[in-house]
Amino acid sequence: MNRFTSAAIAALMVCLCSASHADEGMWTFHGFPFAKANAALKTSLDQAWLDRVRSATVRLSNCTATFVSAEGLILTNHHCIEACLAEQSSKEKSFVEDGFLATSREAEKKCQTQVADVLVGMEEITAKISAATAGKDEAAANEVRKSTLTQLEGECEAQTKQKCQSVTLYEGGQYWLYKYKRYTDVRLVFAPEASISAFGGDPDNFQFPRWCLDMGLLRAYEDGKPAVPANFLKINFAGPAAGEAVFVSGHPGATDRGLTLAQLKQQRNIDLPQWLLRYSEIRGRFIQFASVSPQNERITADQLNGLENGIKVRRKMLDALHEDSLLARKAAEQAALEKNVAKNAALKKSTGNPWHDIEVALAAERAIFQPYTYIENGAGFQGRLVNYARALVRGTAERDKPNGQRFREFTDSALPRVQQNLGASVPVYPELEELRLGNSLERMREWLGPDHPVVRKLLSKESPAALAKRLVTGTKLADPAVRLELWKGGSAAVAASNDPMIVLARSIDGDARALRKTFEDSVEAPLRSATERLARARFATLGTSVYPDATFTLRLNYGTVQGWNENGKPVEPFTRLSRAFERATGSDPFRIPESWERVKGKLAMNTPFNLSTNNDIVGGNSGSPLINAKGEIVGLLFDGNIHSISGAYWFDTEKNRAIAVHPAIMREALSKVYSADAVLAELAK
Amino acid sequence: MNRFTSAAIAALMVCLCSASHADEGMWTFHGFPFAKANAALKTSLDQAWLDRVRSATVRLSNCTATFVSAEGLILTNHHCIEACLAEQSSKEKSFVEDGFLATSREAEKKCQTQVADVLVGMEEITAKISAATAGKDEAAANEVRKSTLTQLEGECEAQTKQKCQSVTLYEGGQYWLYKYKRYTDVRLVFAPEASISAFGGDPDNFQFPRWCLDMGLLRAYEDGKPAVPANFLKINFAGPAAGEAVFVSGHPGATDRGLTLAQLKQQRNIDLPQWLLRYSEIRGRFIQFASVSPQNERITADQLNGLENGIKVRRKMLDALHEDSLLARKAAEQAALEKNVAKNAALKKSTGNPWHDIEVALAAERAIFQPYTYIENGAGFQGRLVNYARALVRGTAERDKPNGQRFREFTDSALPRVQQNLGASVPVYPELEELRLGNSLERMREWLGPDHPVVRKLLSKESPAALAKRLVTGTKLADPAVRLELWKGGSAAVAASNDPMIVLARSIDGDARALRKTFEDSVEAPLRSATERLARARFATLGTSVYPDATFTLRLNYGTVQGWNENGKPVEPFTRLSRAFERATGSDPFRIPESWERVKGKLAMNTPFNLSTNNDIVGGNSGSPLINAKGEIVGLLFDGNIHSISGAYWFDTEKNRAIAVHPAIMREALSKVYSADAVLAELAK
Repeated sequence: MNRFTSAAIAALMVCLCSASHADEGMWTFHGFPFAKANAALKTSLDQAWLDRVRSATVRLSNCTATFVSAEGLILTNHHCIEACLAEQSSKEKSFVEDGFLATSREAEKKCQTQVADVLVGMEEITAKISAATAGKDEAAANEVRKSTLTQLEGECEAQTKQKCQSVTLYEGGQYWLYKYKRYTDVRLVFAPEASISAFGGDPDNFQFPRWCLDMGLLRAYEDGKPAVPANFLKINFAGPAAGEAVFVSGHPGATDRGLTLAQLKQQRNIDLPQWLLRYSEIRGRFIQFASVSPQNERITADQLNGLENGIKVRRKMLDALHEDSLLARKAAEQAALEKNVAKNAALKKSTGNPWHDIEVALAAERAIFQPYTYIENGAGFQGRLVNYARALVRGTAERDKPNGQRFREFTDSALPRVQQNLGASVPVYPELEELRLGNSLERMREWLGPDHPVVRKLLSKESPAALAKRLVTGTKLADPAVRLELWKGGSAAVAASNDPMIVLARSIDGDARALRKTFEDSVEAPLRSATERLARARFATLGTSVYPDATFTLRLNYGTVQGWNENGKPVEPFTRLSRAFERATGSDPFRIPESWERVKGKLAMNTPFNLSTNNDIVGGNSGSPLINAKGEIVGLLFDGNIHSISGAYWFDTEKNRAIAVHPAIMREALSKVYSADAVLAELAK
Repeated sequence: MNRFTSAAIAALMVCLCSASHADEGMWTFHGFPFAKANAALKTSLDQAWLDRVRSATVRLSNCTATFVSAEGLILTNHHCIEACLAEQSSKEKSFVEDGFLATSREAEKKCQTQVADVLVGMEEITAKISAATAGKDEAAANEVRKSTLTQLEGECEAQTKQKCQSVTLYEGGQYWLYKYKRYTDVRLVFAPEASISAFGGDPDNFQFPRWCLDMGLLRAYEDGKPAVPANFLKINFAGPAAGEAVFVSGHPGATDRGLTLAQLKQQRNIDLPQWLLRYSEIRGRFIQFASVSPQNERITADQLNGLENGIKVRRKMLDALHEDSLLARKAAEQAALEKNVAKNAALKKSTGNPWHDIEVALAAERAIFQPYTYIENGAGFQGRLVNYARALVRGTAERDKPNGQRFREFTDSALPRVQQNLGASVPVYPELEELRLGNSLERMREWLGPDHPVVRKLLSKESPAALAKRLVTGTKLADPAVRLELWKGGSAAVAASNDPMIVLARSIDGDARALRKTFEDSVEAPLRSATERLARARFATLGTSVYPDATFTLRLNYGTVQGWNENGKPVEPFTRLSRAFERATGSDPFRIPESWERVKGKLAMNTPFNLSTNNDIVGGNSGSPLINAKGEIVGLLFDGNIHSISGAYWFDTEKNRAIAVHPAIMREALSKVYSADAVLAELAK
């Protein structure tokens, strides 16, 4: 919120702005517009540059990262490894709060539920999918589309011994197989304290100027030894200059720039408000729960951080959809496309009226929205334990079917991750489980009504809180050995179990499956049919020089180091260490940790801390390297400014900015605060 | 949610529907359409009937009620006296939960913050206001309008010795002085247990069929003796027949049926989502706080009930505004009026463009929405104690000014209520105060940002929770004697106080006043000017045969006892006792109290319990009598069905239904469950 207002900086900004070359676009690595980017930025990127960047970029389960040494060292954000830090923690000791530095390779701690993927190949399979679905009705096409994807993934994995995942681009305009080298042994090397990695906490989240050392280091292992990656990128600790060309390689999670007007309205009217109401209440429960003791605070910290981030994102997405100008622009684009289609008889025939078909599908979705959300999608069954139970019941039953007939989350390709999660030795806090399960059961009763059959089945003689307590107290599923035994025992073992959480999951699985079937046939199938036709109509009228919506697959975008103009005042693109100390209040979330206060006198106060760029990024890009034209890391993406959230729907060239950790503050901290000499030496190699 | 589906009832419903005469309209007692109503219902209501009903109808501070005996006995809802029950309670004993029956007149307990008003006169003052504001610019007109209302109220009170309140109807199309006989000594006589008054709790709220004994009895006193009202209505315990004509006399709180499209969008995009987010979180905190101990549960119960009701109402209002058809209808009405105005040159000149002027004022409101909401409107300062402090600081300063120059909430006419509230001996629970104040300070920091001057002033070195704890622990304002001493000491005493809560309130009062001034000049003044012109344009083109939006002033509406059709299934208008027992789960909120279970065998299971009618009601009508054509009470309004919530914006003849307690269940319970023989005898007189 703090703004620099001196005339000198204002003048500088004007100069920078005139030299800036922002361009939206989350480009695939098989569709990067070299000519356009090189012309805009006066660079000379080529395929070799792209391959080098791709083979050093890492996809974590929730974020992006980069190999930064030949010994498997991985750079990402603190908030990307917060779940791993929480898994290592207990009520008494929080690695999230206190940070961690492995004093030796042996001391590096395994992240039980993390994986690291590197994209090694991409193959288009659109024609195969089109051939498989040709001539089928929507529901049948939907099923064969999924079974074909499953089959192609399976064949690919058998053949390449890599992880193969299908990717749907342009909402069905293209299908691809992406092939990954997967590391399943990923260990913690370094994390600073949460108070400095997220200095300013939720109030400062999505704000700039910022002062966050949102960094963390992992190491990939293979066969018990540090992995040797195909490639890594070096960090240039000097960082970039204002106005310099910078590139972000990463995995933007999801954008909705291709949605129709009706889909945007459904988000505005239903999806976003419903989610926000549910999670605002849970936020209140977490905060109140945490306020009772330091132990409670420790065990809720990582979930609360994630939740508050999610609330802020969706709140601003909702604000964006409340801008009449955004909907007007989308309506105009839609009308233009409709007009172009109408002009071409053949195209008109093959396209049909996807806008209308989408409206029908959305009406079908609204009709089952609450039961589908609460029962199948799990809004009524929250917490680790009940999710273990549901995965065991559903997963063992699915495993009994042929691969192509299973739900996509339980295909042969997906099962290793299911088993990794079931077997992970992570802490389960009964009081938190009771809170979450009790709350979700109560809200299910509220939204479905006390007379809904599933509600009556579960709550006709027990209150939500009492049921949650009985299940959490009685289940043995907190023990990974118990979970793995059931998993290995398969559907027979699950059917024979009298674990109360398994009994609950069994009792609702039929209801949930019925809702899933309705959803797939009456919502998913017609939607996919319509969006495929829409995508083809767009290709036919606009060409293929547009980028697809984000899908948590690898993308590259280009931009420059830039501030922006906020209410007529320029925001300078760099912050410096001195201001963090000036801004500290001594209490969370504006507390500088003791480790920094202790060496304050030795720190160079003018060290650049965070910086802003006009790259087009979104959640999932967290942990992405900010790369210069030479292929060096000159920043670590960790956030966007408040205007970046509307990036879900469009890219605001004037105001949408990405925010990165400056490499100089990483070195300053690793050297003077954390004495992480071995890490620095490895990064210098 | 339970529905009757037998063919016989379906046939009956068709018959009833064809005989029904629903009509929207919350008619003033000076504008009731006798001819239209009598023709529709085949009744013969006249002015005498109207006067008799008016003089027996009571306005409580939050609800409606009726005199039901010559000795001042007042019938209203349990939820209308819940605050009074909570004021009598402690951590150990909850009258909300356990109910109350005064075993003698002496045992009747005074409601410290309640008043009972009976409307005794109505005088139109539109011409006086028009004369005062003529020729002034908007800001000056706004000020003189308010000072004139203050002056007229003062003159009226001096002259009549009654309570005089100005009323703005048709958003400024008419101004009135309403004159009330006020009872300030109101005592508790009877309340059932919360588990039966609100059987089904929040899940069943706004649902029908229902089984709630949502009744309570108060008694007005004058000079320490039971009051003798000018009039009272007798209860007809037989209740009404299906299809019978019924009237609701009461005080609907607020509707927004006259708002422009831009105003509705502002509610949809900003007011409602913001409120819902804030209070969903507080709901979570309350629920979690209450879950820790029965004591905590007791002290949060009444606030949580109110909050959950408010959430449900606003959620459904938001849903209504998300219906494209509603906004389309409003747009069409607006366009028609605009066209009619354009046709008439003189009207066009006097009307100007109020729609555009409203949009400008709303943009000004959006620009200050967060600081105004958090700082002046108190979203950042929640809890009893901080509100006492703010009332003392603001009120004593205002009292030093001439009556006409004060904020309207501190005029001479308003001061007795301010003093009654400050002097009320009501429990203050420090842990709840800390929760609310801490939460609101934290959200203020979130929404205004850590660098807002008021946030920096309060929170630069203390966390929100720490500041709340220090203030709540340090203040003496929980003691009514301390509050009254400061109030009587006036601005000098307040200025000299070092009570930390007073210090806080003093420190922000200037900021809050500045925001109020901006709001009044740039939002309120142009809005009022525009809505006055809009109202006059409506009168000119539509005549005055329309009713004004609800303003928590006395209204009468007419309808019939009716069910409705839900998804093709008829909902029968009466419920019966037997089904309540069948529906009970044994745990809250579906628990039948022990007092009922004990005498279950003696209860007539076919006793009618609740009923639905097509009267046009809204919050504030709670506690209203349902009156038959003979002027007898045949039901006690306590809720509407889920479709009634959209009544904020329009009246849905097909589905909007009011819900009342049937008199038969009142008699059954008073007689067989509560043995309230004296009460029954008094009601029979």
